[in-house]
Amino acid sequence: MSITITAFEHSPDGGKGLARDTRVRWALEEVGQPYDVRPLSMQALKESTHLCRNPFGQIPTYEEGDLCLFESGAIVFHIAERYAGLFPSDADARARAIMWMFAALNSVEPSILEIVVARFAEGDKPWAHERLPLVFDRIRQRLRPLAVRLGDADWLDGEFSAGDLIMVSVLLRLRPSGILDEFPTLAAYVARGEARPAYQRAFAAQLAQATAAMSPGA
Amino acid sequence: MSITITAFEHSPDGGKGLARDTRVRWALEEVGQPYDVRPLSMQALKESTHLCRNPFGQIPTYEEGDLCLFESGAIVFHIAERYAGLFPSDADARARAIMWMFAALNSVEPSILEIVVARFAEGDKPWAHERLPLVFDRIRQRLRPLAVRLGDADWLDGEFSAGDLIMVSVLLRLRPSGILDEFPTLAAYVARGEARPAYQRAFAAQLAQATAAMSPGA
Repeated sequence: MSITITAFEHSPDGGKGLARDTRVRWALEEVGQPYDVRPLSMQALKESTHLCRNPFGQIPTYEEGDLCLFESGAIVFHIAERYAGLFPSDADARARAIMWMFAALNSVEPSILEIVVARFAEGDKPWAHERLPLVFDRIRQRLRPLAVRLGDADWLDGEFSAGDLIMVSVLLRLRPSGILDEFPTLAAYVARGEARPAYQRAFAAQLAQATAAMSPGA
Repeated sequence: MSITITAFEHSPDGGKGLARDTRVRWALEEVGQPYDVRPLSMQALKESTHLCRNPFGQIPTYEEGDLCLFESGAIVFHIAERYAGLFPSDADARARAIMWMFAALNSVEPSILEIVVARFAEGDKPWAHERLPLVFDRIRQRLRPLAVRLGDADWLDGEFSAGDLIMVSVLLRLRPSGILDEFPTLAAYVARGEARPAYQRAFAAQLAQATAAMSPGA
């Protein structure tokens, strides 16, 4: 069965790889599965066809035969479970890889997404300037113990897994803020993720799409 | 192998069931597995013994033989995978149950936890009063599409699953704010979850512990 994912027709980041389709593309590249992309305009995200795929009107989604999934974490989980390459074979190690997926999405990413709220949703509020450092401090409170746990290891628990794929995808959204560089071992961890050939292919694919969609002839 | 979880010795909510050990207890009750509880003081959460279990210094954790997990989502997933009762047997339905777990934890809970930030972490800031309605509005933006998707069904996708267990656990934290009651079908959904005998047992167990820890003779 062929796999089709959805992505922004015009990614708001212009192809920096921060949209969540990149992590799904990355997972598919790691396990060597081809996929099609259905690019969606901002308007199409709110139409009933897409709301049927994802009630929250977001990308990415994943379609394969009769199965339709949303939530990047659930999609990466599904790919990792179905195809070899992203979960260790040992049962306990696999449970820990899944633990790091949830930790990235529930204990780390929410603090990082608050930057978007502070800078954009509340960017015109009188407290915007004074509040941003508090948001940054809450992110640091999450990164400090994460850096301690990673130590000088390459990956969070033995070999590279879906847990690292999600954690790296979450952390790299921090780079524009400068906070990631305050934690050199985490910055190096993210760089190791980005250096993987599968990530490179995923990044190139989303960039090519963003560039094609933005060219005048497209 | 016996199961041991960690929980607050003195839950900050005084036994209202809002601490995250409740969802783990609930999952264990649904699948009929006994468990031991290791109550931890706020001080013990920051000690190396516990940071080894969870680098973020939080409860709950889950120990079973050599396996030690943190993150309530990962723990509930592990229980649902290991014991019958929380995942459907159909592969696509199982993938969707897992999707709802991730959706609850990554698309719904972060907006709800911002109430804690607004009321407590930033409760003394000059913007606290004016900002809270914005936080509430972002929660409503998540609940509206969720209510549409649930419709008049009992559960999110067929039979009760781990996806409902996590979603109900996330939503019930909203009750004190009054926002849940603005969405009667979601309030009824949460009430259906709370009415399950397994939830009742889990709630009673965490309340008994909170009460015992708070009594003068304890």
